[in-house]
Amino acid sequence: MNSSKLTVGIDIGGTNTVIGFVDDGGRCLDKTVLSTQSFQDVENFIKGCTDTIQSMEEKLPKASMLIGIGIAAPNVNYYENTIDMPANLKWDKVNLVDMIRTVYDCPVAIMNDADAVALGEMNYGAARGMENFIVITLGTGVGSGIVVNGQIVHGAHGLAGEYGHTIVVPNGRQCGCGRLGCLEAYASANGLRRTVFELISSHQFKSMLSQFSFHDLSGELITDAAVHQDPLALHAFDFTGRILGQALANLSAIFDPESIILFGGLMQAGDLLFGPTSAFYEQNLLNIYTGKMKLLKSNGNDGLMSILGACELVRRKIREKEAA
Amino acid sequence: MNSSKLTVGIDIGGTNTVIGFVDDGGRCLDKTVLSTQSFQDVENFIKGCTDTIQSMEEKLPKASMLIGIGIAAPNVNYYENTIDMPANLKWDKVNLVDMIRTVYDCPVAIMNDADAVALGEMNYGAARGMENFIVITLGTGVGSGIVVNGQIVHGAHGLAGEYGHTIVVPNGRQCGCGRLGCLEAYASANGLRRTVFELISSHQFKSMLSQFSFHDLSGELITDAAVHQDPLALHAFDFTGRILGQALANLSAIFDPESIILFGGLMQAGDLLFGPTSAFYEQNLLNIYTGKMKLLKSNGNDGLMSILGACELVRRKIREKEAA
Repeated sequence: MNSSKLTVGIDIGGTNTVIGFVDDGGRCLDKTVLSTQSFQDVENFIKGCTDTIQSMEEKLPKASMLIGIGIAAPNVNYYENTIDMPANLKWDKVNLVDMIRTVYDCPVAIMNDADAVALGEMNYGAARGMENFIVITLGTGVGSGIVVNGQIVHGAHGLAGEYGHTIVVPNGRQCGCGRLGCLEAYASANGLRRTVFELISSHQFKSMLSQFSFHDLSGELITDAAVHQDPLALHAFDFTGRILGQALANLSAIFDPESIILFGGLMQAGDLLFGPTSAFYEQNLLNIYTGKMKLLKSNGNDGLMSILGACELVRRKIREKEAA
Repeated sequence: MNSSKLTVGIDIGGTNTVIGFVDDGGRCLDKTVLSTQSFQDVENFIKGCTDTIQSMEEKLPKASMLIGIGIAAPNVNYYENTIDMPANLKWDKVNLVDMIRTVYDCPVAIMNDADAVALGEMNYGAARGMENFIVITLGTGVGSGIVVNGQIVHGAHGLAGEYGHTIVVPNGRQCGCGRLGCLEAYASANGLRRTVFELISSHQFKSMLSQFSFHDLSGELITDAAVHQDPLALHAFDFTGRILGQALANLSAIFDPESIILFGGLMQAGDLLFGPTSAFYEQNLLNIYTGKMKLLKSNGNDGLMSILGACELVRRKIREKEAA
């Protein structure tokens, strides 16, 4: 390998944190996965991350140089560099940028995970060449990264892009945010589980899924059942696609994007979810948009795309600084 | 009056078209109202407009000079300069810019009426100093002008901002666009009429509104009844505010704006509509946004604000040309 300027991307998830070294061509040279929950508190977590970066650095060729660290995380306030009480992490309001910079005196930047995926898709993924597109992340929750005129929409207070918390079913299911009927309560992995339980309660399906407790039921189990033509599981994906497709058609009417890219753990279900979502999307699209905008699957592996985006973020910040 | 460079703004509505001369300080010097429907076809309409501009021009002080014409209209494709089969006008796809330029050889620009209002509010109205805000126009239909980072969101194909055609009640009322449950089917003047009829059918209100046919019922009559404490009319405004307030809370979760500005004919009902809308907006706002974003009433008179915005549009185009 030639001498090169490397960046580190850290993708913080509720379950796992992935740390990767990325070169200036967007290639991930090395990757380590940590268990986010295994750290007692945020101080220990940061120490775990910086220790990992140091030991990964030692294995790199001598000619390479770490020039910056980018972080993708949930509930980031982009203007304040803070994570504000993320639902799946036991932290209060923390500034990870400042914490990492006490160890690494290089540029460090942070952004929302869905925004990082959008930056990744724009530079290395399905959105290359696009200036107006939206990434929807379908995982434990539902997030969105919105790009208008080539810029991520951060909003007036750094809190834009909470499409998972728009109400799509008035007086519908209670969401983790306390309100009723949010998209996240339907189109997330957890929403899919809830749909299975709703269908068990309301229908007479014979299903292999009826043997699982709510605790034990997972997106993988539901996908597996659907692959085996379990009628309840297929119905659950159809119901999810119906709500998600309509929500994405609404989003198209607001933004008139080139494309909407679906990303995240739930997309491991592939066409089981993408098929009905796509059908109900087209069905609900205002006629002036027909044929103009595409629903796409992300071709990026989960952890990697947000790492690439986080690295692109810090490279942009470095370029801006150099230009100033 | 001193010598000044004037622009003409044309606000094309389904009922009336307003033409105004505006100076570079955003003052409207003279205004004429034409009946849009009185013209047989679009060629006659354009002749009516240019004749009006000419006769208004003759009355202006000699030192003044017309430097550009801006148009605000429904269903504009911003990139193609066309109006595409507007629902309330009997025209096909037309390019008014080219048509006017055969008479007036000066810069002519066109944009969506809601976008023009947003430009007007940004320069002369409630949004002065704001870079992230949204204007919702509540008239015969429902439109939206969205500003992100100081720029109007036009989308990939010039068709963004159709917030009136997002589905807010799944399987709800049929909308003029053919789909079910659009915001426009509830939060427009026509939607308000439909709500009155729905409430008559479903409740036992004693109401002065039960004497009107659907044809004769108007937003003004409903407002007047509500002013006189008619319970049906008050209930209709409450119902409208409930749906609109929730839809605007959803919009806030997407954009994290500084404010959302309510504008248009239906806002003549004042606090009868603004009161419940505001209450349900706050009630449905995600807690991270509480206290951060304001719902505002436009302080601009309907026709005038879009004229000011249309004039600002053509002034911007002239400045861009001069800078290039």
